Parts: sequence; structure tokens; C-alpha cells
Amino acid sequence: MPTEASGAPGRRRPLTRRALLGAAGFGAAAGGGALVAATVRESPAAPSGGARATVPFHGPQQAGILHPRQTHAHLAAFDFGARTDRGRAAALLLRWSTAAQRLTRGEPVGEEISPPGSRAADTGVALGAGPASLTLTFGFGASFFDRVGLAAARPEALAPLPAFPDDRLDPARGDGDLFVQIAADDPLVCLHALRTVQRLAHGEAKTRWVMSGFTTAPVPGRTAPTHRNLMGQLDGTANPSPADAAARDRILVTAPGAPPWLAGGSYVVVRRIRMLLDHWDTLPQEHREQALGRRAADGSPLTGGGEHTAPDLTANRPDGVPVIAHNAHIRLAAPGANGGATMLRRGWSYYDGLRADGTPDAGMLFVAWQSDPRTGFVPVQQRLARGDALGRYLVHEASSLFVVPGGVRPGGYVAQALLEI
Amino acid sequence: MPTEASGAPGRRRPLTRRALLGAAGFGAAAGGGALVAATVRESPAAPSGGARATVPFHGPQQAGILHPRQTHAHLAAFDFGARTDRGRAAALLLRWSTAAQRLTRGEPVGEEISPPGSRAADTGVALGAGPASLTLTFGFGASFFDRVGLAAARPEALAPLPAFPDDRLDPARGDGDLFVQIAADDPLVCLHALRTVQRLAHGEAKTRWVMSGFTTAPVPGRTAPTHRNLMGQLDGTANPSPADAAARDRILVTAPGAPPWLAGGSYVVVRRIRMLLDHWDTLPQEHREQALGRRAADGSPLTGGGEHTAPDLTANRPDGVPVIAHNAHIRLAAPGANGGATMLRRGWSYYDGLRADGTPDAGMLFVAWQSDPRTGFVPVQQRLARGDALGRYLVHEASSLFVVPGGVRPGGYVAQALLEI
Repeated sequence: MPTEASGAPGRRRPLTRRALLGAAGFGAAAGGGALVAATVRESPAAPSGGARATVPFHGPQQAGILHPRQTHAHLAAFDFGARTDRGRAAALLLRWSTAAQRLTRGEPVGEEISPPGSRAADTGVALGAGPASLTLTFGFGASFFDRVGLAAARPEALAPLPAFPDDRLDPARGDGDLFVQIAADDPLVCLHALRTVQRLAHGEAKTRWVMSGFTTAPVPGRTAPTHRNLMGQLDGTANPSPADAAARDRILVTAPGAPPWLAGGSYVVVRRIRMLLDHWDTLPQEHREQALGRRAADGSPLTGGGEHTAPDLTANRPDGVPVIAHNAHIRLAAPGANGGATMLRRGWSYYDGLRADGTPDAGMLFVAWQSDPRTGFVPVQQRLARGDALGRYLVHEASSLFVVPGGVRPGGYVAQALLEI
Repeated sequence: MPTEASGAPGRRRPLTRRALLGAAGFGAAAGGGALVAATVRESPAAPSGGARATVPFHGPQQAGILHPRQTHAHLAAFDFGARTDRGRAAALLLRWSTAAQRLTRGEPVGEEISPPGSRAADTGVALGAGPASLTLTFGFGASFFDRVGLAAARPEALAPLPAFPDDRLDPARGDGDLFVQIAADDPLVCLHALRTVQRLAHGEAKTRWVMSGFTTAPVPGRTAPTHRNLMGQLDGTANPSPADAAARDRILVTAPGAPPWLAGGSYVVVRRIRMLLDHWDTLPQEHREQALGRRAADGSPLTGGGEHTAPDLTANRPDGVPVIAHNAHIRLAAPGANGGATMLRRGWSYYDGLRADGTPDAGMLFVAWQSDPRTGFVPVQQRLARGDALGRYLVHEASSLFVVPGGVRPGGYVAQALLEI
């Protein structure tokens, strides 16, 4: 992805709502007025539990970051077409934001927000099944800022991730101008939202890649437990609690100098990490636990205690060998001298059937949120890449970094403060 | 698949449990005794709801046919290796049956039932997440009977399905010696069971294909609702109720002359039907409803009433045109003069991401159960193939027919009465 500041500030011009809707091809006849009115309707009171549970789209942050991870997710990236400019991009984000508001309430998406000349109204696929805690979270790749003529506004933290040893990245499954994370506790609701987002991009942006994942179904009465990954490990034990204010500062952009569109936003690293499960599953349990540094059954560190007991990285066995090995995953992933978890990991497992060689195409959709990847993901991955014992059972197949703008106010749309400068 | 009766009755020999376990490579040292003891343990009382819900593996029918459809499924076929004979096949089915019993109780699968020299014990991937109404249902393709030297025992109803016009079948994703349907309300539990079944086949049978599907998550308090497919249709409205005895006779093999291993069994047709959703979704709602013959919103026939009102196939509009078109799906799929539904459809939707042309690789894993495919699936599909209005939006990509033996008694295994003849 190019990161040169090729921005042409001269291209910036005031972008009023009128100009935006015009650029979007919404005339009065196309229902633009109804659309705007719809976006300011108040959300009904959210019933709780199961299919009827709602997570509001509007708020100081985008939904889908701090909320407990849902059971199903589609991660997708889009590339703009040749005709895209700032106004058209804004129109797409308005369509997406309007649809997200409706879908997350369990309402159909009206025909009036379809791109002109494109698909029909809501297909009704998820009628009666949702919203099932649906969230849609929108972000931008580095290339976005070039495509919309705002290269000068691209944050420095969106610089390309460094190359890591042993990465085997497929560029076709990484990066992209636009990113959407769609997650819900119902698989049909989740897919319907993806299809709707794709439909509303018609004529403006093409799907670059889609990855689909899952985790354990929610257990009533248990909130946000640690989930097992496909290696059988409780995964995410060291995650910061979003309720902890200091931790939130490491997850969300809260720095006073941040541009308004980025305030309350975040950076997300998305990686497709295939697990060599046919190999891993043959290893003795002890070896698997040593590679991680924790017990499989309850996630407790090998130095004792429970899942949330801090590992004692200084403890040695009687023979002088460290209890938690030098190359154990949790030792290398542990925060440095600055202390505290530096990102919120909120990913999903994936299973895409069998590869040509008969091994499973399965692993983890790694999704990590941080206020700055240069102090979040990058140093952790640099330590892991030096010899994490789990690394020999993992293949990093795709990698992306996106900036996720702050929350959306009722009647507004994602990144409005950036695009209407 | 060959169906010539090449059976060599002379190869039949008494197959005692001792011979079976010997053939399986279980010595006393390998825990064969413990295994047999484990299989007769009584199932604990089944708690109800969510992760803890259980569906007993043992019973007069195999589980996973009459039980309400779970949210997630993997369908898989296996082909035997070169060394397979009747004894080795029986040993595999004993391993699978033992594992199925444990997994469906939410218990780990012990190392003692692993094939000799193969993978480790239960990987613990689904520890604490299940059993979530897990079922495992085992069947045989026509080739099974040749591979185990029992060609003479192959039922006539297992003859190859006729070719249907417009089928575009991929042989690599159809048929197979062995079939397993794995379904659960938790995606991790479901995948763990698939991986376990694959592990226990190690050295005996190789996975031929896997297809993975989903449907709407269960809504507490609502039992077995009709689910929407990816075309937005309530799908399966005309399904027989398993509680109806006459309907059960069409789903399960209840004929007095059936061989003991098949009594209470069934035949399952499995088809991968891709939907041309990018086309379908652009159609006006009226056209989509005409193609099916039902309203999208509530599944009622176009002739009025509710979802379960019988369609009036004789009703005409004032201009003389039938209200339910001549080529409407429900008209062609309607039962013939014999009356009554002739199969139980219990399939799942699938979404496998994007195809090379950018269209969705999505549709339906059609799974239909019947006591005889020659009077169940075949005549219905022959009528549909003559001009079903939905057909132009569907591509039949894979097709299989399997016979599913009757239920398993505690301590026994699938098709024991066949393999121990």
C-alpha cells in the first residue's frame, strides 16, 4: 500500500449534505429525504437476550470493539472502483451507516438507500431472526486516503506493518480500501448483513476478500467468557477489560491531538492464521501446554493458580529449567517494561473445509484492536516472530491494518468529520 | 458407484466381538476391555437447554433424523483405504459409535479408542462448550457394500439416483463409502466432533468431502420453526411431522421384510445446491413469490391463509391465469396422487465465501430423509427438473445417496447386525 503523502489539499472542498446526496445519486425522487429522516429515528428500547438482543450502532465508539464477541463474524474488505471520489465515498458510507442502523435494530433495509439502478430492497433473508446482537464496524486501509483525495489526512500510525519472518502472506486476502467487520449471534443474520453491505456497495466498491469465523455459542447467564481456539487453548485470557479506563486508552484513540474523526476510533490488525492442526493434535498434552505456557483444561499458567493468575516468569523447576519455557507463547507475548496489555484481541476461529492435501483449512481470524499498532501489535509480533514455540504450528496467510473511525452520531455516518472537511 | 452384485457370499464368516476387536487392532493392552465397558455405561439424565442439551445417541433410530434441526452441521463422506475388510470396517464403526456416544454426552473421547499408532486423545477443543444437542448420524454409500464384501446385502433402493437434466455434478463432492452427518447448536462442538471422527478414521478411511452449513440460531421457547433459506423463503413448510405415524413410515424403513440392520433406518439424499443469489436478489418480490408459490413474509401460499394452509392449486385469477403458476415450485413439488409428504427435508444453508467470478459460493445443503428414494426424492426431483421456476436460479453441484442403518443399542455399534452376520 502506498503511504507517500500524495495528498492534494487543493482537491478538498466543502462537502455539504446536499452535495453529498447529489454525489450519491440520491434525488428527492430517490427518497433521499426519507433516508435522512430515517437515520435520526430513535432506537427502540433494546430487549435483552438471544435473537432480540440489540447493540446500538450509534455511540462514542463504533459497535463491535468493546462489546463481548458474538458467535459469528464475516470480515470483508472492499476496493473502490475507478469513479470513486470523496463525495461518492461519503455517499457509500452514508448508505452503509443507514443500513447498519436499521439492521442492528432488526429492521429491513429500504429500497430507498439502494444505489441507483442496482439491486432490490431488503431480501428478507433474516426476517424474524435478528438482530441477535448484530454489529457492523467500518474501517479504512491506507489506500483509502489516496482514493478519496485525502492522503494528507492519513494517520502516521496507518503505515504498513513491518514484514515478519515466516509470514506467508497472500496479498489478495489482505489490505483493501475499506474494511467491514460484521458479527452477530445468529449465522443467518450475520450473512444477511454481509450481503446487504455488498449490495449497497454496488457500482462503487467491489468485495476484495471475505473471511468467515465463529466461536462458541453464548451460554445464558455467562458473560464474555474466554473462548477456546481450535488448538484447544483458552484464548484471550490476558485481554484488557474494556471497563478499565487505562486499558481503554490502549484500545481506543483518546489522545487529545487526534483529529475529530478519529477520536474514539481504533486500529485493527486482521490476520488469517492457519493452524497445522493435524500435526498439533498428535502432540502430547504436556508439549502443547509447554508451547503455550498454560494448562489446557483451565487456562491457568504452568506456575499455578487459576486462569487469571499472573504467570510467574521467574519460576524454575528444581533442575533449574524455567517452568514457563523461554520460548513459551505467553512469555514472548507478555507486555514489556511499560506493563499492561497493549491490545484487545477479539478474533474468531475459522474452518473452510479441506485443503488440496487433505489437511484442514482452519485456524484463527486474528482481530486485534489498539490505539496505535506501533506500540500494540507490532512489538508483540516482533517478539513472537523471534521464536514463539507455537509458531511452528501456525502459518500467517494474510495480514491487514485498518484505521477505524470513531463512533457515529444519529443522523450522521462513519467518518463524516473526515469526508465533509 | 458400482452397483453390480459382485458379492462373494463365501467371504462371509462369523464375526465375533473377539474377532472384531482383534481385527481392529485392539489388544487387551490397548484398552479394548475398557472400551466395551464404556459403551454400556448409562447416559446421565439430560439437562435441557443450550450448551447442556443432549440428544441420546442410542435408540430405535439414529439421532439426527427426527430431532429438530440444529444450527450447525458438517456433512462428510469417507472412502476406505486399500486394506479395509469387513472386520476393519466393523472396528471403525465401533470406534465411531463409541466416540459418538461420548461426544453427545459432552464427554471427552478417550485415548483408548484411537486407532493404533495414530493421534492423541481428545484434543479438548470443545471442553465446556457442549454437547449442545450434538448428533452424529452414520450411513453407507453403494460402494460400501463392495468394499466390505457384502455386495449381496446391498439394498435395491440404494441404486444410483437417475441423472436429472441440468445437474452439474462434481463427482469429487458426491458419494463415498461412508457418510457422517454431524450437527449441533454450537459451531465449536460441531467442528470438534468432525475432527474426532476424522481422527478415529486414521489409517482406515480418508475424508472424501466435507460440506458445512448453518441455519438460524434457536429461539428460546420456539421449537422447530420453519427456517429461512438464503433465498429468503421459509423452507420446509410441507415437511411431515415426525410425530405423525404415517409420516414416519415414509421417513423411516418400517417395512416388515427389511433386514434387521436396516429396520428403523432411512435413506438420505444429500445435494449441494448453489443459489445464484446475485441474480435472485435483483428480482422483484412478486416474481420471487410467483416462482415459489408462497409469500416471502409468512410462507402462506399465494392462494391465501397462513404458512400451513394447503395451497389451492386449482384457483385462477379473474383473467384465467392460475394464482399458483404452472411452474411454481410448490406446484411441482406437491405430492402426487398417493398424497402426503414423501420425505423429510432437514438441510442447512451454506456460505463458502466468494467464487473466482466474485459471486457468492452459497446455497443449500439439501438433506432429505425417506424410507425409499424411489418413491421419495426421485419422483419429486423428476417433476422439478421438468421446469421448476426456481430451477434457473439453482445449480445442483453435488449429489449423493446413502443408506442409514437403524438405531444403535447401548454397547453396540452402527450396522452391527449387518457386519456381524
